[in-house]
Amino acid sequence: MNLNQLLKPNKICIVGASERTGFGGDTCRNILTYMDPSRVFFVNPKRDTVFGIKAYPDMASIPGSFDLVVICTPAHTVEGLLREAAAKGAHGAVVYASGYKEIGTPEGLAAQQSLVRLCNELDIALMGPNCAGFVNYIDRVYPFAFLSEERDRRGSIGFVSQSGQLCLSLMDSPDIRFSYSISSGNCAVTEMEDYISFLVDDEDTKVVAVYLEGVRNPTKLADALRRAALKRKPIVILKAGRSEKGGRLAASHTGSLAGADRIFDALFAKFGVIRVNDLEELRYTAQLFSVLPKLPACPTFASMNLSGGETGICADVGELCGIVYPDFAPETLQKLRDLLPGYASPANPLDMTATLSYDTEGYAAALRAVMGDPNVGMVVAGYTLLQKIADPAIEYMAAAMEIVSRDPDCKPMAMLPFVGNTRNAEYSAKLEACGVAMLPPPCYGLRILRYLADFVAYDPSQYDLSLAIPDRPHTGKRYALNEHAGKQFVATFGIPVPQEDIACSSEQAVDIAERVGYPVVMKIDSPDILHKSDCGCVQLDLKHPEAVAKAYDRILQNAQTHHPDAQIGGVLVQHMVPWGTEMILGVSSDPSFGPAVLVGLGGVFVEIFKDTALALAPLSREEARQMIDRLKGSVLLKGYRGNAPLDTEALIDALLSVSQLATEHKDALLELDLNPLFVYEKGVCSADAVVVTDAPLS
Amino acid sequence: MNLNQLLKPNKICIVGASERTGFGGDTCRNILTYMDPSRVFFVNPKRDTVFGIKAYPDMASIPGSFDLVVICTPAHTVEGLLREAAAKGAHGAVVYASGYKEIGTPEGLAAQQSLVRLCNELDIALMGPNCAGFVNYIDRVYPFAFLSEERDRRGSIGFVSQSGQLCLSLMDSPDIRFSYSISSGNCAVTEMEDYISFLVDDEDTKVVAVYLEGVRNPTKLADALRRAALKRKPIVILKAGRSEKGGRLAASHTGSLAGADRIFDALFAKFGVIRVNDLEELRYTAQLFSVLPKLPACPTFASMNLSGGETGICADVGELCGIVYPDFAPETLQKLRDLLPGYASPANPLDMTATLSYDTEGYAAALRAVMGDPNVGMVVAGYTLLQKIADPAIEYMAAAMEIVSRDPDCKPMAMLPFVGNTRNAEYSAKLEACGVAMLPPPCYGLRILRYLADFVAYDPSQYDLSLAIPDRPHTGKRYALNEHAGKQFVATFGIPVPQEDIACSSEQAVDIAERVGYPVVMKIDSPDILHKSDCGCVQLDLKHPEAVAKAYDRILQNAQTHHPDAQIGGVLVQHMVPWGTEMILGVSSDPSFGPAVLVGLGGVFVEIFKDTALALAPLSREEARQMIDRLKGSVLLKGYRGNAPLDTEALIDALLSVSQLATEHKDALLELDLNPLFVYEKGVCSADAVVVTDAPLS
Repeated sequence: MNLNQLLKPNKICIVGASERTGFGGDTCRNILTYMDPSRVFFVNPKRDTVFGIKAYPDMASIPGSFDLVVICTPAHTVEGLLREAAAKGAHGAVVYASGYKEIGTPEGLAAQQSLVRLCNELDIALMGPNCAGFVNYIDRVYPFAFLSEERDRRGSIGFVSQSGQLCLSLMDSPDIRFSYSISSGNCAVTEMEDYISFLVDDEDTKVVAVYLEGVRNPTKLADALRRAALKRKPIVILKAGRSEKGGRLAASHTGSLAGADRIFDALFAKFGVIRVNDLEELRYTAQLFSVLPKLPACPTFASMNLSGGETGICADVGELCGIVYPDFAPETLQKLRDLLPGYASPANPLDMTATLSYDTEGYAAALRAVMGDPNVGMVVAGYTLLQKIADPAIEYMAAAMEIVSRDPDCKPMAMLPFVGNTRNAEYSAKLEACGVAMLPPPCYGLRILRYLADFVAYDPSQYDLSLAIPDRPHTGKRYALNEHAGKQFVATFGIPVPQEDIACSSEQAVDIAERVGYPVVMKIDSPDILHKSDCGCVQLDLKHPEAVAKAYDRILQNAQTHHPDAQIGGVLVQHMVPWGTEMILGVSSDPSFGPAVLVGLGGVFVEIFKDTALALAPLSREEARQMIDRLKGSVLLKGYRGNAPLDTEALIDALLSVSQLATEHKDALLELDLNPLFVYEKGVCSADAVVVTDAPLS
Repeated sequence: MNLNQLLKPNKICIVGASERTGFGGDTCRNILTYMDPSRVFFVNPKRDTVFGIKAYPDMASIPGSFDLVVICTPAHTVEGLLREAAAKGAHGAVVYASGYKEIGTPEGLAAQQSLVRLCNELDIALMGPNCAGFVNYIDRVYPFAFLSEERDRRGSIGFVSQSGQLCLSLMDSPDIRFSYSISSGNCAVTEMEDYISFLVDDEDTKVVAVYLEGVRNPTKLADALRRAALKRKPIVILKAGRSEKGGRLAASHTGSLAGADRIFDALFAKFGVIRVNDLEELRYTAQLFSVLPKLPACPTFASMNLSGGETGICADVGELCGIVYPDFAPETLQKLRDLLPGYASPANPLDMTATLSYDTEGYAAALRAVMGDPNVGMVVAGYTLLQKIADPAIEYMAAAMEIVSRDPDCKPMAMLPFVGNTRNAEYSAKLEACGVAMLPPPCYGLRILRYLADFVAYDPSQYDLSLAIPDRPHTGKRYALNEHAGKQFVATFGIPVPQEDIACSSEQAVDIAERVGYPVVMKIDSPDILHKSDCGCVQLDLKHPEAVAKAYDRILQNAQTHHPDAQIGGVLVQHMVPWGTEMILGVSSDPSFGPAVLVGLGGVFVEIFKDTALALAPLSREEARQMIDRLKGSVLLKGYRGNAPLDTEALIDALLSVSQLATEHKDALLELDLNPLFVYEKGVCSADAVVVTDAPLS
């Protein structure tokens, strides 16, 4: 779908143009104060003019063609109007009307399906229905249903929102500037993935900001995220549904599938997408990327403040947010000692005391001293810029920042206030113009810098940026391999499993035991007996042929006594592998994004502390390594309490094997569980394997 | 120390009164725009008048007496001026000058010590030195060194700050209103504890807000916190030093002892003090308590929003912050269904859709429906009140809130915006006047509501509000009891330990074994042999007299072979207790606040997950229970994986015994470690006890 006629139209037609309050009137007001009138046609059969501009009785009467129709009239009029518009060459449409899928009735759903069919037939990229429209600030197009106080906000943030209200709130925020601002509505035709894709490719958009409730086309989304990752264009997403209640809401609100929230975290981690918690974070994170002339070369910060109290807050909240303040190099410390009064004790975060705040040259020299430090990626000046300036310090500081910003090797700068305020517009604009990003107070501001740090630290070459998105939906059926077959299956992908085989007689059992090596474990092979130990159908630590033969008979007898109707495949005879550090490796398949690979340590680690890491297949070796490093329990692998380190490379091999298996069987595989997989000083071994598919494995 | 002449003076004298920019001039400007001039005397030997007011050449020339002297002149003039002021009856002084302890030189320290001596001699309550002064908004006293844009801010927040800069930032924040605002400076004479104590007792102060770097008088602080807890007056503290870097800074900045940060968490938890992360949280938490006409009866919230996107943010961020949104009762749901359009699906958080936002009666009815729900403690209306009103919805909503606020059973209300803005002053004032608290955006706003919820849930009767503050400083020496003596010592406080005794011959060893019961463990008793197992000085699981006799000889022989010079007390013969769930109980003594009791599960719980709970002695039974409940690992005690539940009551008894022991020995005890203490289905047993004191135990 080509979005150019929708989002970058040359001429547009407003149907339902009006002077009254409401969609039609407010759209006309927006357009007339913002757009070149020669690019706009109004249609209203009841009026000759609207706000002094000629109104046509219908689209057919308009001379020549147009690209986009904006329909301000109710739902029942929409389809006829789309046909009229198509006849005039339009391939874009904005539909404000509600009454479609969002009302949750069969009629609403049918209306939406009919609309989709029609747009496909007419090749129309339709925004909505049930949307507020969009603004293209680059080409000055303003088909938007609500009035804003301040319309002229051309900038470089491309914003798309599945909520009209949040779209409006962001558009009315002070100081924020956009390339595009899009209220997507129901996404019946043009989907969130289409808008994101457009903004990723758009040259006027420096950062893509998204409010997302759900995804309909995972492949298209993944393609857009991949392109963004490779060209290092930041995408900032507020994704609803982190909580259980929020997830239910997001699913019901636009009728799109919210999906398991952890899967989105995994998706975003793979592609370096920044996930934020609320609209305020979305706003300031996007603004940070849009204002900074370049990104920090390394994800570390110097914090410079005018008082000890402020410096302490930067230290404490910085640690909460995971901000790295590197120690200053000795030369930096010496330069600062020369600049600051004797009682100051230079460190990072830095309490400059108030002395330099009334001294442009001195403040500039301190900025340069800190920027010259090789460990520092970015400078954060702590200062509460109030709306009404009471203290003249900002005059000197702003002048210093402006001077330093012209240095060819100037590092990125931001200003962090300690209480929230609409900032003094004059200084705010002046500072942003020389590339200084304005942040909100510390708990927001330093978390936003952490997002920046994560983005800077992300390296797309460390990730496998393909996804194993299933080609077909799940069948709804479940097939489980038996234990032996499961282990044989995972073994074909290179995952070590115990030597074992199924015996159908006590002689066979002894033969297998001799072959796999003593001691052995024996257990009944039956899909009908679940708690095998409880009924004497598991025998451990058998060390010689007589014990094996006797165990064979005992197991069969116990099975027949306790489960007379059970189907018996034989008795599994397995070399008893030594105990190692217990890990869990697993796969669960997400219907949208395919198999997700999970790793964790067994026992209390997973059960009590939920200490697991999840990533979408396929994994690169580096991704697998990062998953393991993310586990708090990974210290157990690295030589815990004087023990020798365990074989992390073999564990990574096993994770990659799981990833490969899951990728190859992305359509059929529902679940895989290797639990426990033992990790040794040398090698690993999976003591069990549960494999569940939705179709028999070929 | 009586702070009334300092903080509530009738007449005040400004020394160094001036018309120039600087302390003297700005103080005069502040005072002349705010205070009744008949209460003020100016002193300046070089001028006849200052801003048209008579200036006296010295204090002696002033007719009559005054209560407070405000010294705007440099450090070297201060002591002489204090003597002059004392001669005029002043018992309060504000000293702005720096050059004291904060500059870190011996001269600075000596100057401060001399100042303290003089104030004690003259009975003067001195604020500072190195402070910015204070404002008493109740009695209109404004001896403050910096200009503010808006001075008339009488309200009910009593604020004291150890940082002048943070004091100023908070005073310049929009909308906040104070009873007192105090920049304490170096706290050489009047200490933070004195100010906090004053504000706790002050009838005009509804909530106490504090920026705290360190504590000098723990007993006085604890007394003030206890009084506040018992009268349920909220104290909100921004305490520097949560991070290691922040802790070092706070200690260096005002030269006060920052103390172990976790001890402050424990202190605040005991007294129900709210600890916030930054100045923005301090501001809005204090403002919330000052605006709400009453506190919620229960710590639960109803969230009402105009769109699905906003509702999702409230759900997601609410969960991150630990906000409880109870499900609405069936009657509430029915009332909401009657009020909202058919496609709305009422739930908490509630997406009201935009329909009622232009309908005062409808919005009021929805508010009342939600307030009528017995599970709801407080209502949070999500709405972004912009500085420039673009949408008239707020008119209807504010009117509805005002109407509902007059209901006798109205529950507390707050308004939560989704982007940060200086809010429209008119509506903001209107809403606050009818008791609706204005919050910052969700990541701040919902965490602040969580602080409120915690305050509401806190019940002082569940805590032992005394503290075991040491009567003397630690001696700096360390005495460790041997294992047997340690266990005997803790046993006298009722903590179960294994039956054991020390044998000095193999016959004695056998006697003891017979008495304590087989199997036994034997180990060398020597302060000089640390790793007893490594040299064969521990023998386990000895089951009969011959084994015990042989083990005795072997242990002694191994000790003599490997440690020929070691002092040997004999061989400890101990009944080998069965293995149980391993806990760690410990005490470490804080020099300021006394013994802190720690509990955690052993092994990876404490080592990897730092899953421990800490509380200051003495503990109430409920405090001990809460400590255990706070542990993630406490699920292991409650019947994990089908096991029988363990004896939590016996564990609580052990914690209370530890608390009692620590309280009785608060002066001498440095450390206590019961590791492991085994917990069984019935009872507990401490398998070891390390007791370290700074003086021999009597």
